[in-house]
Amino acid sequence: MFDTLEGAPTGTQVALDAVFDALRFDAEGLLPAIAQHADSGEILMFAWMNREALRETLQSGRVCYFSRSRRSLWRKGEASGNVQRLKELRFDCDGDVVLMKIDQTGPACHTGRATCFYLKVDGDQVIVDRDIDVDPEAMYEKS
Amino acid sequence: MFDTLEGAPTGTQVALDAVFDALRFDAEGLLPAIAQHADSGEILMFAWMNREALRETLQSGRVCYFSRSRRSLWRKGEASGNVQRLKELRFDCDGDVVLMKIDQTGPACHTGRATCFYLKVDGDQVIVDRDIDVDPEAMYEKS
Repeated sequence: MFDTLEGAPTGTQVALDAVFDALRFDAEGLLPAIAQHADSGEILMFAWMNREALRETLQSGRVCYFSRSRRSLWRKGEASGNVQRLKELRFDCDGDVVLMKIDQTGPACHTGRATCFYLKVDGDQVIVDRDIDVDPEAMYEKS
Repeated sequence: MFDTLEGAPTGTQVALDAVFDALRFDAEGLLPAIAQHADSGEILMFAWMNREALRETLQSGRVCYFSRSRRSLWRKGEASGNVQRLKELRFDCDGDVVLMKIDQTGPACHTGRATCFYLKVDGDQVIVDRDIDVDPEAMYEKS
């Protein structure tokens, strides 16, 4: 499937169900999933999806991951209220990565920052370069 | 390390060597790595890095991944000439993902497209929505 699409011209369409059957989930049945802010283009977080999480995300329009620690579906925002609304979903060339553009309510990161990627390498140092917008304790009390 | 940085104020610095020791490589010794175009913010590709690839990328300023299929360092562009120059590198909140902003020479994707994420879900279809900029055969003859 993905091999044959490599040389396909722009506008080529295939059925989503056929793509689903061809997706290359890893040994644990998961795909890496990248969440990018639909407006700013900022990368907000990275997590994992199993087949069910991906189906639910596409059907509901609300992003659902698979929590590797809890071994269960993780409807982003179910504890914090910080839900993610799906604007666009893409697969990569070999069908083993998901990229989503989303609208984010509140901070994406469990630390209360807008993004999980607040640790920036600067020479031989790493710098925290994003403010905490919401106290995480307050964030998780909301639910 | 990453736990203690969760509540750290903006501007907090820690030594890169200490962060390196705390990074949470997976069972295969790898971290997911996301490459984002430094100017446009577009996600160009997703691959993996081991400790050595990450070190080399930071030291040389040229992006080096770890190829899981070839089980060796993969200096992006060594076959195609489509090198990636590192502009910024970040870790996520729990130290198990790398996000890079890069300058990209030529197409990032082995299909000759600017990005690997050219398969867009549209209802019950998936659409190829990016043109092939460079014939892959010509791309890999260059090296």
